[in-house]
Amino acid sequence: MHHYPEGVDLVDVGPRDGFQSENRVLTTQNKRNVVLGLLNAGLREIQVTSFVNPDRIPQLADAEDLLAVLPFREGVSYLALTLNGKGVERALASPVHRIEVSLSLSDAHSRRNTGMSRERSLSEAEEMLAMCKRAGRSARVSLQCAFGCVLEGPVPLDRVREAVQTLYRAGAEEVVLADTPGVADPPAIDERIAVLRETAPHAAHALHLHDTRGLGLANVLRALQLGVTRFDTAVGGMGGCPFHPGAAGNIPTEDTAFLCSRLGSATGLDLEGVARVTAELETMYAKTFPAKIRSGTHTC
Amino acid sequence: MHHYPEGVDLVDVGPRDGFQSENRVLTTQNKRNVVLGLLNAGLREIQVTSFVNPDRIPQLADAEDLLAVLPFREGVSYLALTLNGKGVERALASPVHRIEVSLSLSDAHSRRNTGMSRERSLSEAEEMLAMCKRAGRSARVSLQCAFGCVLEGPVPLDRVREAVQTLYRAGAEEVVLADTPGVADPPAIDERIAVLRETAPHAAHALHLHDTRGLGLANVLRALQLGVTRFDTAVGGMGGCPFHPGAAGNIPTEDTAFLCSRLGSATGLDLEGVARVTAELETMYAKTFPAKIRSGTHTC
Repeated sequence: MHHYPEGVDLVDVGPRDGFQSENRVLTTQNKRNVVLGLLNAGLREIQVTSFVNPDRIPQLADAEDLLAVLPFREGVSYLALTLNGKGVERALASPVHRIEVSLSLSDAHSRRNTGMSRERSLSEAEEMLAMCKRAGRSARVSLQCAFGCVLEGPVPLDRVREAVQTLYRAGAEEVVLADTPGVADPPAIDERIAVLRETAPHAAHALHLHDTRGLGLANVLRALQLGVTRFDTAVGGMGGCPFHPGAAGNIPTEDTAFLCSRLGSATGLDLEGVARVTAELETMYAKTFPAKIRSGTHTC
Repeated sequence: MHHYPEGVDLVDVGPRDGFQSENRVLTTQNKRNVVLGLLNAGLREIQVTSFVNPDRIPQLADAEDLLAVLPFREGVSYLALTLNGKGVERALASPVHRIEVSLSLSDAHSRRNTGMSRERSLSEAEEMLAMCKRAGRSARVSLQCAFGCVLEGPVPLDRVREAVQTLYRAGAEEVVLADTPGVADPPAIDERIAVLRETAPHAAHALHLHDTRGLGLANVLRALQLGVTRFDTAVGGMGGCPFHPGAAGNIPTEDTAFLCSRLGSATGLDLEGVARVTAELETMYAKTFPAKIRSGTHTC
């Protein structure tokens, strides 16, 4: 019998990574209800929105308005994603708890997603972290395409190592390796987690996985075996990447929490509660999301 | 880095477990084309049909006719499932290579599936194996609900052990632990594979997994880590169980083969070839199957 972590933190990124992947734009009130549902289901970290160009991501154009109506509760942390200094400025002017500085390790993806080369977005990220530090605001870094890119091909391990070193040095409290297109596999989890730990043995780190090729929960299992305890997930398995062809949903919060529960790794989540939020989102979007754990059937 | 098996055998059960789960009945000619597609994609073991009551499973009523038109090729093995002596008689009268003697470890499921109690189906299975032996025909046993049953609840490990002992003793060449409702998890894979190996350390064994709760490939990963090298899969992730409420598809052949390929475990399969068969089946059934590896996109 393998050993698995005692506890695991799931960060629900559905209200950001999920909502931005759908054509339909939810009202701010509907978004608030989704976040409330996630809080009630036990989520304690939620990526509620991003501060990005509203012309490119109109689904999240109400970032400030949403944060103004969300309940702020003890022990709950809201995250917002940013891609440049302008986004950080907006985030700093909002009451969001934690700012995610996000950049891509694929040059092609970086240019498509942000208009910046990979090198330029790396120095931009250092400046963004400095802005957060000056303002005394918590910041984490997400490295998109940390496992490869379908636009560009493989992303060398050395590139991951350099970025991780640079950004921990620049003050990142946590580095998240994001598999934006969903190309990761268990051996890649091994080698990339090793890079994080060689670089900053005691620093927080997390994985952000997509299930494009069906390996999402197999990758989670492998990461749990290695002692990784923090994962980005999305309610229902919503998500994708608007600038990455064919990318499919994030690993579903409820399915990941179910796997954890079966391994004895506590997440503090009420599966039925998460699955009910998915059911509500399916009504709002008039479509079915990928999660296998369903309200009223698989949550006992 | 974990060690994984050098080679893995996938037995495609789609033409049996998949076809019986759909309301639409394919023509014998269409079924032949599906089997041909699987052969061309590199499958060497295919469960092509079952010899069961045609009134209960009309989708497979053409078992004899199908076997009469399938190509018999060197190195290819066709399996057919049977649930009682009458089914074995029909199978023995056909040219099928290998007979699967199937029984359930859940009393409730056994009665619903076969009209026999669990105890009665166990002695029936011994007699079925004796019939195969007398006829000199290869036989394997599948233990349905070997990981639990949603109708009845947990299936005790001792019950698995007793059945495995009895059936290896009765001449089973291979025992397949089948997770009919899709309730298995990695710790259950550990404990049940251990039972097989304690009982018959050198005997062939396999897993038949369903993805009802999303853990299908995580369970495969765990089994591969334990050195399991034989899995039942279904093209496209078709399947379910007509007598098991809520049971979802088998683990998809193409997704399982993709995971194996990423772990360095050779399956000999052409992923694009399998995915093309899924695409054809989706046309025949006018629906989408669960496999994530898709023809023309994720097979490179």
